[in-house]
Parts: sequence; C-alpha cells; structure tokens
Amino acid sequence: MTSTGESSQLQLRSLVRSSGELELSLIEVPITAPGPGEVLVRIEASPLNPSDQGLLFGAADMNAAVASGTNTRPIVTAPIPPNAMKSMAGRLDQSLPVGNEGAGVVVETGSSEAAQGLMGKRVAMLGGAMYSQYRTLRADQCLVLPEGATAADGAAAFVNPLTALGMVDTMRREGHSAIVHTAAASNLGQMLHRLCAAESIQLVNIVRSDDQERLLRGMGAEYVCNTRSPGFAGQLADSVAATGATIGFDAIGGGTLSGQILKAMELAASKNAKAYSRYGSTVHKQVYVYGGLDPRPTELARDYGMAWGIGGWLVMNFMQKIGPAAVATLKERIARELKTTFASKYSTEISLAEVLHLDVIAHYRKRETGKKYLVNPSK
Amino acid sequence: MTSTGESSQLQLRSLVRSSGELELSLIEVPITAPGPGEVLVRIEASPLNPSDQGLLFGAADMNAAVASGTNTRPIVTAPIPPNAMKSMAGRLDQSLPVGNEGAGVVVETGSSEAAQGLMGKRVAMLGGAMYSQYRTLRADQCLVLPEGATAADGAAAFVNPLTALGMVDTMRREGHSAIVHTAAASNLGQMLHRLCAAESIQLVNIVRSDDQERLLRGMGAEYVCNTRSPGFAGQLADSVAATGATIGFDAIGGGTLSGQILKAMELAASKNAKAYSRYGSTVHKQVYVYGGLDPRPTELARDYGMAWGIGGWLVMNFMQKIGPAAVATLKERIARELKTTFASKYSTEISLAEVLHLDVIAHYRKRETGKKYLVNPSK
Repeated sequence: MTSTGESSQLQLRSLVRSSGELELSLIEVPITAPGPGEVLVRIEASPLNPSDQGLLFGAADMNAAVASGTNTRPIVTAPIPPNAMKSMAGRLDQSLPVGNEGAGVVVETGSSEAAQGLMGKRVAMLGGAMYSQYRTLRADQCLVLPEGATAADGAAAFVNPLTALGMVDTMRREGHSAIVHTAAASNLGQMLHRLCAAESIQLVNIVRSDDQERLLRGMGAEYVCNTRSPGFAGQLADSVAATGATIGFDAIGGGTLSGQILKAMELAASKNAKAYSRYGSTVHKQVYVYGGLDPRPTELARDYGMAWGIGGWLVMNFMQKIGPAAVATLKERIARELKTTFASKYSTEISLAEVLHLDVIAHYRKRETGKKYLVNPSK
Repeated sequence: MTSTGESSQLQLRSLVRSSGELELSLIEVPITAPGPGEVLVRIEASPLNPSDQGLLFGAADMNAAVASGTNTRPIVTAPIPPNAMKSMAGRLDQSLPVGNEGAGVVVETGSSEAAQGLMGKRVAMLGGAMYSQYRTLRADQCLVLPEGATAADGAAAFVNPLTALGMVDTMRREGHSAIVHTAAASNLGQMLHRLCAAESIQLVNIVRSDDQERLLRGMGAEYVCNTRSPGFAGQLADSVAATGATIGFDAIGGGTLSGQILKAMELAASKNAKAYSRYGSTVHKQVYVYGGLDPRPTELARDYGMAWGIGGWLVMNFMQKIGPAAVATLKERIARELKTTFASKYSTEISLAEVLHLDVIAHYRKRETGKKYLVNPSK
C-alpha cells in the first residue's frame, strides 16, 4: 500500500490474441511505490492522440466491435482481418497498457532530492501507460507545469509540441529553410503554424477541405493548398516556389501526396536550370512520413530527378538523435509557451470507462478536425 | 582547322521535338581547338551504358522506330507517347550530344603543362558527347590509362567504377557494414561483387534468373537471392539477417522490391527486440534508387517501422559531395585496378553509324546480362 491509501488502480489494456481478436478492458493492477529517483502521479488528463489509437485498436476492424462487461468495467472485442495479423506479430497475446502522455499531481515521491522537489506539483509526463489512475515514473520524465496551468493544459505537452519543434529543428539541421506540411489543420498542424510564424519560417499548409483552409487562413496562414481543389497541383507548385520549401512532413503516408510534394519542389528547383540534365536538379528534396492516416502504400513516381529522399520520422527517434540536453532545452521552451504556441484544445473530456464505450469510440475514431478528446482517469 | 588535319567531325545527336517525335542522327560539327588547359582526344571507345540509352531514346516508343537516311548517315525517328511528353519538357527542341564516358588518344594539347603532359597518351574521359569522333576537354577530366591498357579497357573507367566505389563509400559514411544490391548480375553488379570481396564487405546479390544466380555463384558470391524463386522473401530475409545489411542500392526503382528489402532489414533488426513497439526497431534502414529499369512507380508498404529511408542516388551528386580531392584518390585506384576489380567486358564493338541501325538498336536495347556494347567512333 502506498501513502495514497490505495494499493490498486484501474488501467486500460489492449490485447491482441493470436486467435485473431482484439480485447480492450480495464483491469486492476497494483500501484507501485516510487523508488528513490521516482514519483507517483495521480493522472488527471491524457489526450487521445492518433498514435494512441494506433496502439489501442491495432489492426482490428472496429466497425465489427462488440461490447460486453459492465458500464464501469466495459470490455470491447473486435475481429482482426486475417491478412492484417502479420502486422500484429510483435504484440500477440501481450496485455499492453496505452496512453503516451498525460498530466497529473505528484502524490508521493522517492528519497532523491529531485523526486522530493516534485511533491504536490502538477506535472506533464511522457512514457506510456497513461490511461491509468496512477503512474510511477522517474522524476526526469516529468515536466513541472507553470503556475496556473491545468492538467488539461499540460496533458499534451510532449508529443505534439516536441514533434512541431522537432520538425523545425530537422529542417535547420538538414539545411532547409521552409516547410511543407500535410494534414495541416490538425492540432499539430495549427501548432506548427504558430511555431513557424513565431520563428519567421515559411510554411506551406496542405489540407483536404474548404473548412480546414478557412481555419488556417483565419489563423493567418499565407500558403494553404487544398487537395480537393481542382487547381491543387498548381497551387502547391506556386506555394513551394514562393517559399523555397525543400523539406516536407507528411502525416498521410499512403497514396501519391508525398511524391507530389517532391515534384513541386523539383519544378521550383529546375525552373532556372541552364542546361538540360535528365537527372534533374541537384537540389536535395526531402519528405518525412510521420503518420499513416492513409494506410495504403506510398506511391513514388520518381519524376523529380535523382536528388530526393523520403523516410520515416518519429519524435522518439528524433529525441534520441539530439540527446537529453537538447531535449531538456526544448522542454523548457514548451513549459514557457504552454498556453500560447503549444496550446491544445479539447472538445470533450471522458472517463477511462468511456474510452471503451462503443458510441464514444465511434466518435473519437473519426478524428475530426477541431474534435479532440481528453481522457480523465480521475473522473 | 586543328593539327589533326581535319576541321570537322561526326557527332551523334538526340533531338526530342515538341511535336512529339524523337530524331537520332549523325551531324557534322566543327572540331574545337583545345584552350590552354585543354586537350583534344580522338575517341576510340565509349560504352553504351543504361544511362546513355536513357538520354539517347528519352521516352520514345522505340518499337515504332523508323529508319531513314543512308547506311553511313542513318536517321532514326520514333514517336513519343503523349502522356510521356511531360517528362521530356526540359529537353524539347534541343539537339543533344550523347555518351557519358569514353577513351581515346590525346592528339593535340593546349599550352598548359598539365595539358602538354598528356600528348600522345591514351586516356579515359568523363563529360558527355563521347559518341563523337573527337572531344575537346579539360586535362583534369582525363585519367591516363596504365601501360598496356587498350581504349576498350578504359572506355568505362568512370561511371561503373565510381558508382561501385561510391556505394561502398556511402555505406561507410552512413554507418552501415553490409550491402544489398539489385540487378546484381549487371556489369556494375559484378564489379561491386569484386570490390566487396576485396574489402571483406558482405554483399547480398538480388538477381532475376537462374543464369544470373549461377554467374554470380561462379564468381564466388555467397548470398544470391533470385526474385523469380518461390522462396525469394525467405532467402532475402535470411541473407540480410546473416550479413547485417542495413543499406541497399536498387537499380530497378519501380514496383515493390525496394520496400521488400527494407522489410527484410526490419525483420532482422526486430528479431531480438525485448518489448513491442508499434514503431518498429530504431535501426535505420536505407535503400538508394540509382536506376529505373522498371519505370513504374515505387510502391512502399511502410510495414517496416519508422526508421527507414529511400532516396535517389547519382554518382555525379556523390562526387560533388565528397569533393575533387577524394574523387582523385578514387580515380587513382581505378587506374591501378583497371584490369582486375574494375574490368568491363564487351560482347560487341559497333561504329557510330551502327548505333543508329534499327537491327543493332533492337539488340542493345535488350540489355541482356553478359551482352555489353562498345561504340568505336574511329571505326
């Protein structure tokens, strides 16, 4: 038993059985008392990011999901299409906790000075298993929220802010000066817009609806290209040429969009070519795929010369690359600008049990722009 | 008039008309007297590399080619499919010389010491317009062939040798230790096999026929995977795991092969993973596309985590990246090993006019393994 007076807690789990079935449930797990350098946090808020949904649902067909259990201890099962089971091989028959990041109050600490200094503080956390009532973790995995910040303010202080900062940092490290971003009306997209505006970096925003275009233009975005507009290719080429963007970050992944971005960059780069080269310009054009909103294969027409690259981009790998000191500097900035540049807005707050209610799942799975869900495990 | 006693020469030209037609011909152009730092070379040998054929034929439908002109001044015309004209935009209505590299004898020099030192020497050259009787170029674009080397020995001393050396160099610079190579039975593939053997680098050779597999195994290749074998995916996974290859060079480009290579690398990298991560391993997996034998789009299933990259690779861009001093060192090595590691074999020698004979074109367009054509403009 810990000093919270409780010895166990509820934790959300996702289990892919080798029989081809997904099972989601809340289970009772012991609360772990913090070790010397650790703290125990009562979790008050954790966002339902697309990456969380990826782990939560795996490759299951959620349209065929079935509810059982009770209202407070719901169980959801769903079939996994046989051809998708291969992609689940690494997680078979393991009951996995979910929730990348969250915020809450430190209610108990270990003996180290760093840990004790956090007692009673409201902190943001990165580290998984946040869809739980309590979380024991290292003091250095916590970010103390500034005075007046709520748990909701700090719940998404890591993934999206570090991703936006990581994109700008990657742009600079790899010698580019402007960015193309897809799914640009997302919470992350809006954050990247604010960050680029603050740093005077030109940003080409690619969206897929008039509403999203209006939203970004309303925020002051200068370059917004709508994939559903008949003039999209021309708009994109013009925006890329005007900004000189030679790096893109793509949340879509599948289909031809990444290649279209490379093509627009090559058109701009070869505009002033003096002599014909069938190998295209020597300007390096790069697109990083950081999401998979479209699960289909990426299709590259390769009609943009030879100086191009495409690759996966993951915020965790980026942090590993730049090292803890550089990450700490980024975190300090996030704390300072938590209510401005790095603010997240939520439309709905739900309890742990509600994460597993079929009607709620149907809503948050849509991932509509402007509808963002916050899980409150203390609710 | 130059000291050769001739004032004009024949040069092969490729012209894409905006009307949608390719025209190949031999035209008479003046011989340019060498400037102070230049030399004039009588060309004796130039290979018909895949990259030369790319410039020569563009996007024309060569199955519909028509011959006219005379036997010694042939003209070939061929239609270009309308949907392929976009890819020709950069070269419309320009009569382009062809032939990346070649070898011959220096017959006249400029006043500089470097140029005069080459008088009478047999040299290899890189610089385009080699399907000509004479070529004027800077002395530093020439590589003096070792005693006893013929023009045929030196004709392909640049593109393939520098490509093979560039692949090994790129492997080292980017922190990999073994290589996967496609179209591995090609002249370049055989060269890369010899180079890797000499440097104790493990090489996974991907081929597409039993004959090609036998050829490479006969040369001592340990890892040979045949895409037409039913067990290909398993063979590739095993070979990649055994060698630890995390970089690949792909001459095919179109279709799914690049992605299959990344998948095999990820299988090997995640074999010993301790905990499940839906983002895959953190081992960076890289494939460079350096050719386009399959012109279809590249299809990436992205089922190999987030630590992957694919990109264009071009020997010219590589040379620019490493700088002239490093390139000079590579060239010296090529000269030393011209008859061993970097040897090229030719099955057929043809004249400039024969390059434009339809029956000859039909043969060399097949790009069969073991059939390599050498153009001799002095013939």
